[in-house]
Amino acid sequence: MNAFTFYSPTLFAFGDGEENRTGELVRRFGGTKVLLIYGGGSVKRNGAYDAVISSLKNAGLPWLELSGIQANPRSGKVYEGIDLVRKEGADFLLALGGGSVIDTAKAIGVGGVYDGDFWDYFTGTAPTITDTIPVGVVLTISAAGSEGSNSCVITLEDGNKKWSMQKQDIVRPKFAVMNPRFTCSLPPYQTASGAVDMFAHVCERYFTNTPDVALTDRLCEALFQTILDAAPKALAAPDCYAARADLMWAGMLAHNNLCGTGRVQDWASHQIEHELSAFYDCAHGAGLAVILPAWMRYVLPHNPLRFAQFAVRVFHCEMDFSHPEDTALEGIRRMTAFFRSLGMPTTLGEIGAAVSDIPAMVAHRGEKADGFPFGGFVKIGPEEMRAILELAAEPISSVS
Amino acid sequence: MNAFTFYSPTLFAFGDGEENRTGELVRRFGGTKVLLIYGGGSVKRNGAYDAVISSLKNAGLPWLELSGIQANPRSGKVYEGIDLVRKEGADFLLALGGGSVIDTAKAIGVGGVYDGDFWDYFTGTAPTITDTIPVGVVLTISAAGSEGSNSCVITLEDGNKKWSMQKQDIVRPKFAVMNPRFTCSLPPYQTASGAVDMFAHVCERYFTNTPDVALTDRLCEALFQTILDAAPKALAAPDCYAARADLMWAGMLAHNNLCGTGRVQDWASHQIEHELSAFYDCAHGAGLAVILPAWMRYVLPHNPLRFAQFAVRVFHCEMDFSHPEDTALEGIRRMTAFFRSLGMPTTLGEIGAAVSDIPAMVAHRGEKADGFPFGGFVKIGPEEMRAILELAAEPISSVS
Repeated sequence: MNAFTFYSPTLFAFGDGEENRTGELVRRFGGTKVLLIYGGGSVKRNGAYDAVISSLKNAGLPWLELSGIQANPRSGKVYEGIDLVRKEGADFLLALGGGSVIDTAKAIGVGGVYDGDFWDYFTGTAPTITDTIPVGVVLTISAAGSEGSNSCVITLEDGNKKWSMQKQDIVRPKFAVMNPRFTCSLPPYQTASGAVDMFAHVCERYFTNTPDVALTDRLCEALFQTILDAAPKALAAPDCYAARADLMWAGMLAHNNLCGTGRVQDWASHQIEHELSAFYDCAHGAGLAVILPAWMRYVLPHNPLRFAQFAVRVFHCEMDFSHPEDTALEGIRRMTAFFRSLGMPTTLGEIGAAVSDIPAMVAHRGEKADGFPFGGFVKIGPEEMRAILELAAEPISSVS
Repeated sequence: MNAFTFYSPTLFAFGDGEENRTGELVRRFGGTKVLLIYGGGSVKRNGAYDAVISSLKNAGLPWLELSGIQANPRSGKVYEGIDLVRKEGADFLLALGGGSVIDTAKAIGVGGVYDGDFWDYFTGTAPTITDTIPVGVVLTISAAGSEGSNSCVITLEDGNKKWSMQKQDIVRPKFAVMNPRFTCSLPPYQTASGAVDMFAHVCERYFTNTPDVALTDRLCEALFQTILDAAPKALAAPDCYAARADLMWAGMLAHNNLCGTGRVQDWASHQIEHELSAFYDCAHGAGLAVILPAWMRYVLPHNPLRFAQFAVRVFHCEMDFSHPEDTALEGIRRMTAFFRSLGMPTTLGEIGAAVSDIPAMVAHRGEKADGFPFGGFVKIGPEEMRAILELAAEPISSVS
């Protein structure tokens, strides 16, 4: 186990009806004028918007609104939010939605107190983040885990760059209201995509070269098991509160770094997927369902026993002690089958991606200052990225 | 899963050498004059005291000292600390040690800003805790989990009452420096007692009547497994950093309530053990090793399948689907054998307790305002407490 700092000072108010505490929580964390940020009609249809407005009114809090945030959130809305905050003087950002809305709020928070362009924090040219307009969350999608994380991903419209912001704990939300009921009305594809996203967040931490990580391995496995158990239940019975609650809390725990402390993490699959989202605007989780099995097949020879552990402990494969690589591969097959059982794509073609675009995706990745190599488990250069994307074109059943 | 609020805003600085950040962390959380609280010579022998003093000096922080805190910490030292803080104007409490030192600091923190007697917060007669002198921790014993918890237990010398303080998140430490190396020099009995204490903290949460707690069950099981794996390794090779690190992080996670969110918890074993500690001044973990198996045997009929889950998932017992109670009992036997393998007592006689004292212990418990009944899994009244203590007199092997 490596040395680490773990600081997760977000207050989580979890359960049915907790949204009624929103105004009180904004007050508790110093807000006196709110910028309410959300996407489209879904939060109005499922009652979340009305409940939040009512809670703000009860707390005597004035608010402005910034709506129309989309999946794979764009820089335009961030600039719009920063202008609004500066003109109107909002001192608290309330994100009502999922990861895209929360990440937009985080970027507005950091950009709103910075003299330069907020994008500097995405290119490594800005100083350390030491201040932000505080962010609170009312979560309506279980997926990204941004409600508890110190991370933020935005797509710069100029150049179509889906990049990550500098990670600082000050960026973590002050509070997150988490009512699983709000996720009951999500379309099945979005529920499934969210489940894959959180599964991938655990994978990115699980596959490590750091020795002596038994405790965090087990925490990871507890989350894997929960997602395997709860996601099919939520799809089969969308109103099942227990399954929705498990997914919602697992999504947070998968990304507040509880299960990643003290270990070098990977994140290669996320980096590659960001190019898929940038090129095809696919759901992030759907892109991960395509990339993750391909990445695993590619890097398996680096440490077959770690993949065998994954296969045995998470997918209950029988350990073949004579041929651990076979067990490892069977685990990847079962994970892929699990993604398919949720209705997720697992090949490039299914998300409309073309093999002929692979060189362009690799080149686009190379435009980042820290473009190559990436990945903490296996270093990925342009050749490796190309090879993984090519594997992602073939269904796993055709290889063994 | 029930609704819950989870708020764990402690910064954890974990790893070898992290104690050198102590002064910087005190400054970060607003301290300008420190009251350093510790026990006896062990922190001087293992280098922790010198490292902390050096770090305070580097940060230009003046400090006072309050030493001599003992296991099962007494009210006298709390009153002494409150006087010192008031006279000398310290604005930050730095606990250097384990649970007894941290709990003393927490009680001084709350008492130091209260006009009345700090003990009011233990009797239910004080208002809600809304303020405290901030507490930081440099941990040298893996056991109580007080470094991340909102709880505090003190023994009032007048009446020998080992009671718990009102639980509020503001009482959680601002930071905890956790260097596993400091625990390498602990006597084996103390290492073992700490392991049982954290195991018990997970048990108190695991045995619940709340339905749909699959996720937190798995988190609990991850911690059980870690303790089962790491405690024998730490005893066999006291300098094993990996085992010490697992125990130290598990001890925190076992009690910051991560694995207890959204469920009614039990805590009967702790309540009964507090009487053992009060009567015989035994190590808390040793007392729990005696009480926990007896409590389990007594309450098993309430939900044999939950005990069978514990037996199968934690102790890898074969499930007897025709006789789940047999599987359940086998799990309790294996847990008891595990405690014994660590060198812990598992019967009253081994900690010097007499069966003839049982009525006095039950009566002493009854002096609390909320004395009976207690226990969230099975309600324990005076008769049940007596029966459990009587079971604790017999070795488990003599019953089946």
